[in-house]
Amino acid sequence: MSSRVRIDIPAESGFGPEHLPYCVFSPAGEQPRVGARLGDSIVDLAVALDDPMFAQPSLNAFMAQGPGIWSEVRQRLQAAADGEFPAAAVHAVSAVELRLPIEVADYVDFYASLDHATNAGRIFRPDAEPLLPNWRHLPVGYHGRAGTVVVSGTEVIRPCGQRRTASGTPDFGPSQRLDIEAELGFVVGAGSVRGEPVGTGEFADHVFGVALVNDWSARDIQAWEAQPLGPFLGKSFLTSLSAWVTPLDALREARIPLPDQDPPPLPYLQDRAPWGLDITLRVEWNGHLVATPPYSRMYWSPAQMLAHMTVNGASTRTGDLFASGTVSGPEREERGSLLELSWGGTEPLEVGEAKRTYLEDGDEVVITATAPTASGGRITLGEVRGVIAPARY
Amino acid sequence: MSSRVRIDIPAESGFGPEHLPYCVFSPAGEQPRVGARLGDSIVDLAVALDDPMFAQPSLNAFMAQGPGIWSEVRQRLQAAADGEFPAAAVHAVSAVELRLPIEVADYVDFYASLDHATNAGRIFRPDAEPLLPNWRHLPVGYHGRAGTVVVSGTEVIRPCGQRRTASGTPDFGPSQRLDIEAELGFVVGAGSVRGEPVGTGEFADHVFGVALVNDWSARDIQAWEAQPLGPFLGKSFLTSLSAWVTPLDALREARIPLPDQDPPPLPYLQDRAPWGLDITLRVEWNGHLVATPPYSRMYWSPAQMLAHMTVNGASTRTGDLFASGTVSGPEREERGSLLELSWGGTEPLEVGEAKRTYLEDGDEVVITATAPTASGGRITLGEVRGVIAPARY
Repeated sequence: MSSRVRIDIPAESGFGPEHLPYCVFSPAGEQPRVGARLGDSIVDLAVALDDPMFAQPSLNAFMAQGPGIWSEVRQRLQAAADGEFPAAAVHAVSAVELRLPIEVADYVDFYASLDHATNAGRIFRPDAEPLLPNWRHLPVGYHGRAGTVVVSGTEVIRPCGQRRTASGTPDFGPSQRLDIEAELGFVVGAGSVRGEPVGTGEFADHVFGVALVNDWSARDIQAWEAQPLGPFLGKSFLTSLSAWVTPLDALREARIPLPDQDPPPLPYLQDRAPWGLDITLRVEWNGHLVATPPYSRMYWSPAQMLAHMTVNGASTRTGDLFASGTVSGPEREERGSLLELSWGGTEPLEVGEAKRTYLEDGDEVVITATAPTASGGRITLGEVRGVIAPARY
Repeated sequence: MSSRVRIDIPAESGFGPEHLPYCVFSPAGEQPRVGARLGDSIVDLAVALDDPMFAQPSLNAFMAQGPGIWSEVRQRLQAAADGEFPAAAVHAVSAVELRLPIEVADYVDFYASLDHATNAGRIFRPDAEPLLPNWRHLPVGYHGRAGTVVVSGTEVIRPCGQRRTASGTPDFGPSQRLDIEAELGFVVGAGSVRGEPVGTGEFADHVFGVALVNDWSARDIQAWEAQPLGPFLGKSFLTSLSAWVTPLDALREARIPLPDQDPPPLPYLQDRAPWGLDITLRVEWNGHLVATPPYSRMYWSPAQMLAHMTVNGASTRTGDLFASGTVSGPEREERGSLLELSWGGTEPLEVGEAKRTYLEDGDEVVITATAPTASGGRITLGEVRGVIAPARY
C-alpha cells in the first residue's frame, strides 16, 4: 500500500482549504500537470483524484468541463484536505517549476477603474475633461496579444520602439518609460456561442477564476503609436500572469456591492445585484511597498465586462483572459501604475532610499493581493513577479 | 491496386500547378483534413502524400514545419500534378465542406493603405490633416479577436451595440452602419522567439501564405467606443477568412517594387529590396462589382508589418494572422470599404438598380483577388464571402 501524508497548513497562510487555487507545475524532470495549493504544498490532481484530465500542460481541459465539474472537484479537494493524500501526489511549492496555468485564447484588457481613467486623462489631456464621453456608458476595452502572456517570474526584456521627439520625428531605442499596470484577470473556463451574448447574471456559468496580471506598458512607445487604433507595441511585448488561478467560489466572501454608477447603465449592463470584489492589491518595487490599489473601488464589474464583451455577438472560448485594467483608488498610495504614482514622471516617488519615476534595468516588481474569507481570515492571491532585463538591440 | 485519376485543369482556372493553395476540408461524413487545390478538385494530402501531418483539422501542424518542408511539399505536388493521383485522394471542391484553414493564434490588423487612411481621416476629421503624425513613420496596427475569425461563407449576424445619439447619450440596437473591409491576410507558419525581432529580410522564413480577409466593421459602434483604446466591439463580432491559403511561393511573380516612402522609414523598417504585391481585389455586392482595390498601392509592405510587429520583442506563433487593413486606391472605384465608397454614408452608390450606403440584411459580399503568374496568366486567390443575417435582440 502506498504511503499517505497529511498536509500541514500554517495558520494565516492564505492557502487553506477555503482557497485551493490551481496551477500547472512541473515536478523535477516530469511533464507539466495541474495542481492545487494547500499551505506550502501542491497536490498533483491527476494522482490525487486519479483523473487524466489533470495530466495536462494547462488548466484548459479541466476548465472546459464547466461549473458543475469545477464545483465537484473543489468539494472533493476540500473533503480530502482534512485527511491524507497519497505521498506521490504531494510536492513542495518550492521544489517545482510553475508554468503558465492556462493556454490563453483571446486576451482583452479593460479600463474599468474610474480613478485610473481620471488620472490618465488628467496626465495625458491636462486641459480637457479627464473622462471621455463614452467612459461612464460602457467598459472601455481592447484586445491585447495572447501570445505574449507569460507566467509570473518570466524576465521582462525592456522593449525597443519608436518614441516621439521634440522635433516631431520619432527616434528608435529602448523604452525610457517602462511601467506596470496592476490588474485582476478573469479566466473564461466555459466558452459561449457566437450570436448569444452572456448576460450579467450568467457570469459564473462561464468564468472559472481570477488571477493577478501585470500588463507591462512602455508609455513612450504607446504615446506615439496609439492614435487612432489604440495601444499596440507599447503593450504587446509582455503581460505577466500569476501562476495561480483562484476559483470564483473562493471569492464568495469577497463579493461586495458595486459603487454607484451614474448615469445608470444601459439594460444589458444592469445586474439584479451588481457586485464588486473586496480585493486589496499590493505593489512592491524592489522590496518596498509602493501602492495598495483597492479593487473594491472599480467602477465596472467583472460581470459587466463580460456582458459588454459579448453583447455584439462575439463568442468566448476556454482560456480567454479578460483583465480589469489598472486598479487605482483615489489616494496617491492606491495608484496601480507608475504613470499615476509619478504623475507622468513629474513627481518621483520614494522607493526605499531612491527617488524613482519609471522602471530601471534590474528592478523587480511583485504584485500580490488578498481577499476576505468567511472565517475572518484572508486568502492570498498568487503573486505576479517580474525583473527588468536590459533591452537587446 | 487502387485506381488512379488525372486531374483536369481548365484553362485560366486560376488553380493550376503554379498556384496550389491549401485548405482544410471535410469529405462527406469524415473528419476535416488538409487539401490542396488543382482546378476544381481538392487533393487530400494525407492520402496523396501518405503523411498523417495532413490528417489534421488545421494547417497549423504543417505550417509549423517551416519553409524547407513547405517547399518540399509544394515541389512534390507540382511534380505529381502532371500525372495521376490515387482516386481516393481526389474530391470535387463542390462536394466537400470547407473549414477555417488555420487555428488562429493572434490576429493583428494593420492600416497600411495611404489612400484608405487618407480617406478615413478626411471623413472622420474633415477639418484636420487627414493623416495623423505617426502614420508615415510606422505601420499603425492593433490586435483583433482571434476567436471570431471564421471561414468564408459563415453568416454575418448583424451586431448590436451602443451608438452615439444627437443627445450625447448612447442608445442600443443593431448597427446601422455595417461595413466591409477588403484586405489581404498574412499567415505566420513558423513562429519567432520572444526578444528576437524578425527583420524585413526574414519574412519568408516565417510567413507561410496569403489569404483574403473581410474585416466586417460596425462603424456606428466603432465611432462611439474607440476612444482612447481603439476599435473593440465594432470589429470583434466577426472577421471572415478565405478557405484558401495561397503559399508565398505562388506569389513570386506578383512581387513588385514598393511605392516610394517619404520620409524614409527608420532602419528596422528598411529592406534591401522593398517589395509589394501586384494583387487586384474585386468586391462584389449582391453580384455587382463595386470596387477593384489595388494591393499594388499599399504604402507599408508585408515585411515591414512583420518587422514592426516584432521590433518590441513580441514573439509570433504558428497560426498568427496579420492583415493589411482595408486596401484602397486613389480612385473611387478602388476603395475597399463602404465607408469610403459612400463617403461616410453621404454619397450612395449604385448596386445594380439600388442606391446604397451600408449593408442591409440579406446582402451578400464576395471578395476575390487575382495575381500574375510567370506564364502571363493569373492565379485566383480564394474568395471570402458573407451574407448579412438580421440582428438577434
